[in-house]
Amino acid sequence: MTTPTAHLINGQIVSCPQARLQDVYNPATGAVSGKVELASQATVEAAIAAAEAAFPAWRDTIPVKRARILARFQRLLEERADEICAAITAEHGKVTDDARGELQRGIENVEFATYIPELLKGEHSKNVGPRIDSWSEFQPLGVVAGITPFNFPAMVPLWMFPAALACGNTFVLKPSERDPRAALLIGQIALEAGVPPGVLNVVNGDKEAVDTLLTDKRVQAVSFVGSTPIAEYIYATASANGKRVQALGGAKNHAVIMPDADLDNAVSALMGAAYGSCGERCMAISVAVAVGNEVADALVAKLSTTLASLKVGPGTEASAEMGPLISKPHFEKVRGYVDAGVAEGATLVVDGRTLKVAGHEQGYFLGGTLFDHVTPEMSIYKDEIFGPVLCVVRAHSLQEAMDLIDAHEYGNGTCIFTRDGEAARYFTDLIKVGMVGVNVPLPVPVAYHSFGGWKRSLFGDLSAYGPDAVRFYTRRKTISQRWPTGGVRETAQFAFPA
Amino acid sequence: MTTPTAHLINGQIVSCPQARLQDVYNPATGAVSGKVELASQATVEAAIAAAEAAFPAWRDTIPVKRARILARFQRLLEERADEICAAITAEHGKVTDDARGELQRGIENVEFATYIPELLKGEHSKNVGPRIDSWSEFQPLGVVAGITPFNFPAMVPLWMFPAALACGNTFVLKPSERDPRAALLIGQIALEAGVPPGVLNVVNGDKEAVDTLLTDKRVQAVSFVGSTPIAEYIYATASANGKRVQALGGAKNHAVIMPDADLDNAVSALMGAAYGSCGERCMAISVAVAVGNEVADALVAKLSTTLASLKVGPGTEASAEMGPLISKPHFEKVRGYVDAGVAEGATLVVDGRTLKVAGHEQGYFLGGTLFDHVTPEMSIYKDEIFGPVLCVVRAHSLQEAMDLIDAHEYGNGTCIFTRDGEAARYFTDLIKVGMVGVNVPLPVPVAYHSFGGWKRSLFGDLSAYGPDAVRFYTRRKTISQRWPTGGVRETAQFAFPA
Amino acid sequence: MTTPTAHLINGQIVSCPQARLQDVYNPATGAVSGKVELASQATVEAAIAAAEAAFPAWRDTIPVKRARILARFQRLLEERADEICAAITAEHGKVTDDARGELQRGIENVEFATYIPELLKGEHSKNVGPRIDSWSEFQPLGVVAGITPFNFPAMVPLWMFPAALACGNTFVLKPSERDPRAALLIGQIALEAGVPPGVLNVVNGDKEAVDTLLTDKRVQAVSFVGSTPIAEYIYATASANGKRVQALGGAKNHAVIMPDADLDNAVSALMGAAYGSCGERCMAISVAVAVGNEVADALVAKLSTTLASLKVGPGTEASAEMGPLISKPHFEKVRGYVDAGVAEGATLVVDGRTLKVAGHEQGYFLGGTLFDHVTPEMSIYKDEIFGPVLCVVRAHSLQEAMDLIDAHEYGNGTCIFTRDGEAARYFTDLIKVGMVGVNVPLPVPVAYHSFGGWKRSLFGDLSAYGPDAVRFYTRRKTISQRWPTGGVRETAQFAFPA
Amino acid sequence: MTTPTAHLINGQIVSCPQARLQDVYNPATGAVSGKVELASQATVEAAIAAAEAAFPAWRDTIPVKRARILARFQRLLEERADEICAAITAEHGKVTDDARGELQRGIENVEFATYIPELLKGEHSKNVGPRIDSWSEFQPLGVVAGITPFNFPAMVPLWMFPAALACGNTFVLKPSERDPRAALLIGQIALEAGVPPGVLNVVNGDKEAVDTLLTDKRVQAVSFVGSTPIAEYIYATASANGKRVQALGGAKNHAVIMPDADLDNAVSALMGAAYGSCGERCMAISVAVAVGNEVADALVAKLSTTLASLKVGPGTEASAEMGPLISKPHFEKVRGYVDAGVAEGATLVVDGRTLKVAGHEQGYFLGGTLFDHVTPEMSIYKDEIFGPVLCVVRAHSLQEAMDLIDAHEYGNGTCIFTRDGEAARYFTDLIKVGMVGVNVPLPVPVAYHSFGGWKRSLFGDLSAYGPDAVRFYTRRKTISQRWPTGGVRETAQFAFPA
Repeated sequence: MTTPTAHLINGQIVSCPQARLQDVYNPATGAVSGKVELASQATVEAAIAAAEAAFPAWRDTIPVKRARILARFQRLLEERADEICAAITAEHGKVTDDARGELQRGIENVEFATYIPELLKGEHSKNVGPRIDSWSEFQPLGVVAGITPFNFPAMVPLWMFPAALACGNTFVLKPSERDPRAALLIGQIALEAGVPPGVLNVVNGDKEAVDTLLTDKRVQAVSFVGSTPIAEYIYATASANGKRVQALGGAKNHAVIMPDADLDNAVSALMGAAYGSCGERCMAISVAVAVGNEVADALVAKLSTTLASLKVGPGTEASAEMGPLISKPHFEKVRGYVDAGVAEGATLVVDGRTLKVAGHEQGYFLGGTLFDHVTPEMSIYKDEIFGPVLCVVRAHSLQEAMDLIDAHEYGNGTCIFTRDGEAARYFTDLIKVGMVGVNVPLPVPVAYHSFGGWKRSLFGDLSAYGPDAVRFYTRRKTISQRWPTGGVRETAQFAFPA
Repeated sequence: MTTPTAHLINGQIVSCPQARLQDVYNPATGAVSGKVELASQATVEAAIAAAEAAFPAWRDTIPVKRARILARFQRLLEERADEICAAITAEHGKVTDDARGELQRGIENVEFATYIPELLKGEHSKNVGPRIDSWSEFQPLGVVAGITPFNFPAMVPLWMFPAALACGNTFVLKPSERDPRAALLIGQIALEAGVPPGVLNVVNGDKEAVDTLLTDKRVQAVSFVGSTPIAEYIYATASANGKRVQALGGAKNHAVIMPDADLDNAVSALMGAAYGSCGERCMAISVAVAVGNEVADALVAKLSTTLASLKVGPGTEASAEMGPLISKPHFEKVRGYVDAGVAEGATLVVDGRTLKVAGHEQGYFLGGTLFDHVTPEMSIYKDEIFGPVLCVVRAHSLQEAMDLIDAHEYGNGTCIFTRDGEAARYFTDLIKVGMVGVNVPLPVPVAYHSFGGWKRSLFGDLSAYGPDAVRFYTRRKTISQRWPTGGVRETAQFAFPA
Repeated sequence: MTTPTAHLINGQIVSCPQARLQDVYNPATGAVSGKVELASQATVEAAIAAAEAAFPAWRDTIPVKRARILARFQRLLEERADEICAAITAEHGKVTDDARGELQRGIENVEFATYIPELLKGEHSKNVGPRIDSWSEFQPLGVVAGITPFNFPAMVPLWMFPAALACGNTFVLKPSERDPRAALLIGQIALEAGVPPGVLNVVNGDKEAVDTLLTDKRVQAVSFVGSTPIAEYIYATASANGKRVQALGGAKNHAVIMPDADLDNAVSALMGAAYGSCGERCMAISVAVAVGNEVADALVAKLSTTLASLKVGPGTEASAEMGPLISKPHFEKVRGYVDAGVAEGATLVVDGRTLKVAGHEQGYFLGGTLFDHVTPEMSIYKDEIFGPVLCVVRAHSLQEAMDLIDAHEYGNGTCIFTRDGEAARYFTDLIKVGMVGVNVPLPVPVAYHSFGGWKRSLFGDLSAYGPDAVRFYTRRKTISQRWPTGGVRETAQFAFPA
Repeated sequence: MTTPTAHLINGQIVSCPQARLQDVYNPATGAVSGKVELASQATVEAAIAAAEAAFPAWRDTIPVKRARILARFQRLLEERADEICAAITAEHGKVTDDARGELQRGIENVEFATYIPELLKGEHSKNVGPRIDSWSEFQPLGVVAGITPFNFPAMVPLWMFPAALACGNTFVLKPSERDPRAALLIGQIALEAGVPPGVLNVVNGDKEAVDTLLTDKRVQAVSFVGSTPIAEYIYATASANGKRVQALGGAKNHAVIMPDADLDNAVSALMGAAYGSCGERCMAISVAVAVGNEVADALVAKLSTTLASLKVGPGTEASAEMGPLISKPHFEKVRGYVDAGVAEGATLVVDGRTLKVAGHEQGYFLGGTLFDHVTPEMSIYKDEIFGPVLCVVRAHSLQEAMDLIDAHEYGNGTCIFTRDGEAARYFTDLIKVGMVGVNVPLPVPVAYHSFGGWKRSLFGDLSAYGPDAVRFYTRRKTISQRWPTGGVRETAQFAFPA
């Protein structure tokens, strides 16, 4: 067994002899594949101290130089993609294509961060009063922290620290302890690219590490992505400690299928959106709302046919389209929801519980599952299952579909399938959801826009990555300047000798 | 005695027979001048309900129409300035010029809000993928709340609700119960200007009203200006209730006087900045740091001479330059700080405690006070006094002056007096303060920039008014759109009959 | 007969005894209604000199003050709308509603200009090199000129000078000599609002005045709206004299009606777009391309029915929906096109030549005219008729319709009527036209966007009004600043005596 | 002798057997080092045709993909810098450090072009009218041309085509025929990086090539950098052919040295700014205005001492600080100005005419030359010499210095040396020059700002590179969209069977 995954502090891999250790599993086999060190408060404080010490010099490194270090980082990530993706698949379980996809999305956030000389431009006003000029600068905060989830072990860290670093901050990242290797590797690659020691630190850990980050006075801001209960805890705790916070939580994303939709396109899109990464995505579509029975019947028929050929297997197998769930407890929780759905009266069209992956009987595999006739009071409708379970709900009209979506506690993503311009405009205008697709099932904004849900999917006012991240990771400073008269211009008047 | 100042809810002045009442004083005489109703939870909930009911129609009022209502509001405020300023002076005590000044600043925020069609522009990206377009809209939040302080009873409300309304939100304002009339009057004027009933509501009250706003689920965001302990309470409580919050707190603003400063200019500037509005401004200069004994001696000499001619009297007297403090307890607190300063060993150069304003012996008048040789461990240095007390500290160098400023808990405003470009740039770049003046003693940003301190002077990530207010009062929605092929463009191909 | 319309120079109405005079007509009666003075070179030079003299003080008037003068100007325009519109109708002939509409559009450009404190913000970059800051300011040009057409005697001048003045320029406006009163009146109102003498000057005239503006070295920039041949002359001549120029020319705007269009809506929209203001608009729809015979037949049937009830009469009559053409020669030119269309083989569905307006037999009235089966080689298709003549062309597909539009020399405006998102996106993406409507027949951008065609409809790179106008009327100045070390910060280190 | 430098058209090196050839010289030896083909009209038309054919596919390549090709191009330029710089030094003569410097500046423009996904964002407005949305897109123009000067054979081409390509245009570059190899090499590297054939074409040539680009209808826009007479010809001719144009011309950049300047710093800065690249830069400082005799005397003394140790030699020698002039005729022209300066009465402090570079007697070497007591009527003051000649002018005050600068026909760059904030602000505010340095001798804006002079240094309204380039190389398209009611949303209301 390999060395436990430890921490990256001040440019060094740091391991503590007395550290608590936790098992890391291979979800495709159910076997323990390694250990991760859980940082003590002292270890996290050491990382914070390293970040604080590195701040002044990094802050004064001119933005275009910071951008060039990030550009090198981008190139190294591309060159070492195989290695990173292997770490993702080994610990998270997702298939290689999914790992590639998440890494590519993450790299695009690094690419955006290289635009920082443009993005940091402040506003300059001449003559706000007579001979008074005023301008706003956007200065870095100091030490900032990121706490990231298991489901995108590479992408979500890359949403955060490249933008934070580009703005001149130093960073302490605490990735998920369930699949910690990818983030640590990425941190090491950043240092290779020229990020100075202490500017980026990675600590692995659990609640002790999190609470240290939330309460230490030196930490200026916290970015979090995870489930809603934890997001609320993070938001309340870090706020009570005076910090700025953005905390992204859970989701229950609905797709609306209108009678005029291109159904083949919609089905193909839903397959990826519902079952991709085993449904463990905060932007996964977990509810399909069919408007009218005709489209509902056709949709369910096509989905069940297509599901029949979905290839489930270890992420390392080239043919696999969907891998295992992250852990045994999560597997059991998801399977429990399928049981509950049946008990609550939903029609189980495709039952993923029967799946067996030969040779991987201890792996956390659940087949793609499809429910029809789901209704809003069922737990499979109300809760975020975070597994390969798609619920079809039937509605009489677009308005009814929208009322359903707006009544749900989450408001992360949604989409509509239609050809009709008016339906799309009405939906996108009024729906209380932050990211909206029109015939785009996973409307994740590109890296140069920002990511954020509404309602209980996001706590805070600024979204993740993109332009909002630049605002989040900087503090506005406004200068008002007037120069006194009587200086060298007016006093230096020379009469030349004849 | 007049009717108690009550509430403006859903376009009506609302008074509750059983309401708790509180006295309002005339600070120039110490007499009770009226009463204010303290809203119960039910009353505040009625205001929230009115705001919620008014939201859909206001949200759908096109931005240019909202802007034109605000432009009318601006004109009415200008026309009725005398009436508003009289209410300010009567309850707050500040001299008429100061009242005019604060109202003018407030009006400038309304002017900024009329730019909303320009300010609400979202970002549009063509071809984020093949034939996929994506854009961000900035939509209103719904019901938002503002809680404002006694010291700017007109200006601070006008920092908040005009921008919030321009963005399409509806608003519940809770002004200070110590000088409530100005805000209520302004609210009525807004309705006259065409703001629909329910879009702007004003409730007067105390902690019961505040707590209702902080915890009611329908309130989406809270803006606060006040003291730091309350700001922290607001920030923590509203955050724990899932809201977005910006909470502006206290200050201890230092002016640095360099050896090359234009001293006459600096003294004139400091007089206004330290004693204007009786020092009850979060941007007041309360500490002057003189670099070198030579400049310190000259500064103290000139300030004490100038202070001798400062005219203190009721705000209603045209000749008065400084009025009374807000209340008896506050008067005693400030006078206690002067006592403490003497006890702690500071040199009391000008003693405002001896002042008597003939005919107003019960008024809360304290004369302009000047301390020299103040040191950082004294309470008059550490605490925000919020009165007409200026402390001179002596430093050996600019760096020492800056270290003092950076070591203080607050970081609202600061300024430097110098002619030297390098000194100004070094100071403005590195000082940990949000609003910085160069030869500008009160570097309050103009309305088209934003207002915000650093450290314990602001909790949250977005500053007040200006561009940040537009971001604070809107939620980002990002749409990704791709249209399916096979529609009318491709299918409608006609062969005309020969 | 009234005094000849003369000039507004340096705050005074200026008339030259020896000036050449030209008749101004009432198009509804054919009678001479007044005279206009045609400025000599010397008169125009006097206006330029006044503008040049007024520049330094206006440039140094802080932007927010310029904005407030423009806000007063906006209010006065609203108050005196009746007077302005009467002048428009009297000399141009358009009906009062149209005059109101153009004035309202013009006022919206004044409203936009009041946002100037926000719009003039420059870009500020900290640390472009170590301790080097750089920022861009947008400074006014100096004296700029506008040359405007007869068809919008109030709106087009208001597209230009409010933005130019807001940026700090001074202006010489040369309106059309066919309907000069409205612009002169507007100029006088601007002065009443507080625009200082010399900042805005109005000269009436013909080619002599134009050529003086194009060649005088003091004129920094020229904005022009008119026909394409003149636009080309303006663009070439002013450019050869080293000036920046934007010259907007003619148009032949096509509407595409798809088989899925809401036909009632399309017909209603086309009636206004084709016949409003007698077709004398550069954004008028003069060609309707019907995709498929079915929609063509229905469209022509509905249009001819609706045309039958179009009320044509003097603009001063409340019931009139369409007034006369601008002049006798233009009337004859337009009638000649109808003759030509018949001769060329188009189907004349509704013949406006037969119209008689009782009591106004000498007025330049032509009825609304509709051609069907128009083909691209006909002169009524190729030329800009600028009259109430709508040509229906039949196409087999959207692609064929778009090929027609792209083959035409002009590219000002166009629109598509459809419900289909894909058709709209394909059309708006690929069509070589600057302003595109989707179910919006006159896609004139709002004042906070910019107006500009493509191909031979606009010469220059920046569009009219909106954000582009701010860029056009300002010159970029970029400052790079580094302060030398060894100044007061570093040398002023004091040791205090013990 | 090597193959003549030919053309890059549609991805191929194209050579025409009958082409006119012109000698290319090695300025360090005076020997012919090669030949360049001068493109005929037909050859240029072939390049234009290739660019036109390549346009549709490149336009539809999504911006982020275009950005990634440019990022690869940037990396290849860095990798092959030695090869490019060798070509520059061989044909232009500048020393290797200067060649490196210009290439680095050019590469920074490629870096800026990679931000294009951010830079192309259009403005999106919701509800410009009820349910009407409007947005502006910035679409590429089509085929655009760049005509570049001998003095920056790599940098100026890189100012132009990377931004143009990033925006989606295709390009025809005509570099200077005096040093054509670097641009051709850079063009080939762009293709290696993935720029598709035809997207970037390079044609060498003289007036025939230029005139073809200026008159061909397919060319949409022309960017030019060169001398003012040619810039005026380009601006007038291309404008008369309906194109958008930006034409950058000559300069006579003044540095003002104030009495409080850090003189060592100023002298060091002036040495580079006046003599770097042999003064053949449009941003070179050619006039130093000393305010007061004291600073003038000290300045001249220090400059003449420093000049004595300036190492002049072939650009290929590592020790050389300044190389030869570009050509024999130019050498003679510059030497003639030195003769004229003496004849006109200026004090020749250091005479560069006497310089001999051993072993390179036929090279075009002129030593660094310094004149004192230069006055405005002298030809050495009035004309752009474009050689290593610095003129010292003495002024009585800053105002007099500024009057001199503002009276000069050019307004490209200028700078002031002072420590005084007020002097700097007064100078930068009022001086009629586009690029202004404060203690920065060569205030060339960084790549993310834009480059442009005032007065006869720039014709057009948009500056080169940076944000203005994005505006110049795109056409605004504004879409207004409203969807008709009665579509699928409203009609699709289903009653489910019981």
